[in-house]
Amino acid sequence: MQDNSTPRTELERLGEFGLINFLTKNIILKQNSTLKGVGDDAAVLSFEANKKCVVTTDMLVEGVHFDLSYVPLKHLGYKAVMVNISDLAAMNAMPRQITVSIALSNRFSLEAVDELYQGIYLACEKCNVDVVGGDTTSSTSGLIISVTAIGEAIENELVYRDGARENDLIVVSGDLGAAYVGLQLLEREKDVYLSSNKQVQPDLEGHDYILERQLKPEARTDINELLKKLEVLPTSMIDVSDGLSSEMLHICTASVKGCNLYEEKIPIDPTTYNTAREFNLDPTVCALNGGEDYELLFTIDLKDFDKIKGNPNFTVIGHITEQAQGCNLITKSGALYPLTAQGWNALQESEKEEEKPEE
Amino acid sequence: MQDNSTPRTELERLGEFGLINFLTKNIILKQNSTLKGVGDDAAVLSFEANKKCVVTTDMLVEGVHFDLSYVPLKHLGYKAVMVNISDLAAMNAMPRQITVSIALSNRFSLEAVDELYQGIYLACEKCNVDVVGGDTTSSTSGLIISVTAIGEAIENELVYRDGARENDLIVVSGDLGAAYVGLQLLEREKDVYLSSNKQVQPDLEGHDYILERQLKPEARTDINELLKKLEVLPTSMIDVSDGLSSEMLHICTASVKGCNLYEEKIPIDPTTYNTAREFNLDPTVCALNGGEDYELLFTIDLKDFDKIKGNPNFTVIGHITEQAQGCNLITKSGALYPLTAQGWNALQESEKEEEKPEE
Repeated sequence: MQDNSTPRTELERLGEFGLINFLTKNIILKQNSTLKGVGDDAAVLSFEANKKCVVTTDMLVEGVHFDLSYVPLKHLGYKAVMVNISDLAAMNAMPRQITVSIALSNRFSLEAVDELYQGIYLACEKCNVDVVGGDTTSSTSGLIISVTAIGEAIENELVYRDGARENDLIVVSGDLGAAYVGLQLLEREKDVYLSSNKQVQPDLEGHDYILERQLKPEARTDINELLKKLEVLPTSMIDVSDGLSSEMLHICTASVKGCNLYEEKIPIDPTTYNTAREFNLDPTVCALNGGEDYELLFTIDLKDFDKIKGNPNFTVIGHITEQAQGCNLITKSGALYPLTAQGWNALQESEKEEEKPEE
Repeated sequence: MQDNSTPRTELERLGEFGLINFLTKNIILKQNSTLKGVGDDAAVLSFEANKKCVVTTDMLVEGVHFDLSYVPLKHLGYKAVMVNISDLAAMNAMPRQITVSIALSNRFSLEAVDELYQGIYLACEKCNVDVVGGDTTSSTSGLIISVTAIGEAIENELVYRDGARENDLIVVSGDLGAAYVGLQLLEREKDVYLSSNKQVQPDLEGHDYILERQLKPEARTDINELLKKLEVLPTSMIDVSDGLSSEMLHICTASVKGCNLYEEKIPIDPTTYNTAREFNLDPTVCALNGGEDYELLFTIDLKDFDKIKGNPNFTVIGHITEQAQGCNLITKSGALYPLTAQGWNALQESEKEEEKPEE
């Protein structure tokens, strides 16, 4: 939980300019495209003539997107950057720069802000991204982080949501549902910790994988690189931030198509599966509606199937149909359910009635 | 001040995707450089080969940067965009796109958010800027707006803070101090309103100019255009967001120079002057430390003086010296005071002792 033994330096001791200087003094710009970073009224970037500039932004709010009673600040900073880079990966663009704005109350010490920025810089280092600007301000309550990420891509390598065509295969990287189950675990241990008057330390052993998926998500820029190497250009792509169901509906709506997803094909890690069961959750529902997996969901032409076949990074989970057929999940029992963006409870109820016991 | 007669639609009735659709459905992209706006994982922009991409970001927090008891939401939206465009103007870059992220509590209705966005879109229309992305989320308390603005400029037309040279003239556009005095007026009327149990309506008559300077600031992109027409390329530039004193120190620090500013030259509108006096404030101190004027402060080579001489948009207020001479204000009485970023009280005290009665 929070470690109270660390020293505490009040932010007001530094003032706004002092804090900005503290947070930015060690920045080393790595990108050729960064002409001017932090320190003027704006940053100046230079993109190659054949490259397009790709821009995305996301805001994380304390009490809405994260709970600092179990999210370490360093992880939070890391995640705030990664979720934005994941949006660039979903366009098939490579990340180049970010700006970071934070608002924070006087509850936060300099040491706390330093920890947050350590996570931010770690994510930037991992993705080879420059911090080129931002804003640091007070809030009346809690912590808010707003990151804007800038990437670049050759125009005909960009992948949008609207390019899926009938008979395209639906593919997802990695596995799904772990981040959501990880969150359930953290919430449960927080409740135990609070109801025991903080006597009982959290029992998180043996759940490293799903906790890391929740606390330290990775943007799958490695998948963009792998696809390029395999010479597969997806016809449409999105990242899984809200859950497979919602993302699939985004692709189908934008592409004016339908889809069939097969429950038995959805990749779920055994740890995710077993922990979901502990919580009396349907693992498939966790994958469909949990979100925060930050895997890439994309469609490919049938002719590209051989290029990805057998690759452990990819799972084919369905195919695109004509719009009139709707967006469906075919369950293990062969039943067909329409996908819904807010289908959590509805699906869970139906599944319970229909589902046969697992082997 | 808040009108309770308007209808109220709860945001939860629309959901996140419904709200985004409501807020973005009327967007018409105007910039050639916008290839893809709202509606995918990221926006795609295309800059001409000889242009650089200029990026800046600012976050406004309720209770810190604005008080909704006297700032209309439409004005707030307008200002949130303008302060960012002002940062681009300070680089001599022309604005092209923005992203807008907002976090808001359930205190805000759909009608309130609509009003905020009307101001955002009005500012964009005025500056010919496209809204290409953003994020809409809940907050546990209050309203937070984070805007990132993207502009473009030819590399050798960009103006940084660090280019001021000895003997350069220091020039400011428009007039200073009005926004700060406008804020005092709004604060006073709020106090009267609250202490009268909301019986007394605010008395803001005859103060249109200074109120507009506080509530509806304009980014001076017209000054960039005028300077280009006059064939004057400033050697350094910044916008006046924190006050003349602080901005001048930024230029001198970055350029490793000193400066002499002349109190009698600082342009202050008569309304600002008289209202400041009503509040027992020194108008010069309001100009030096008030901020939020969003005028452009820049330095030019002596040889360019003839090009701006007599132009009512510009006032020469001093000149750049060598660093060893420090950054000074020469008062009307001929006394010399070092400029300080937090010099408010110190300067005000000294001035009171020294100052001769005004004519």
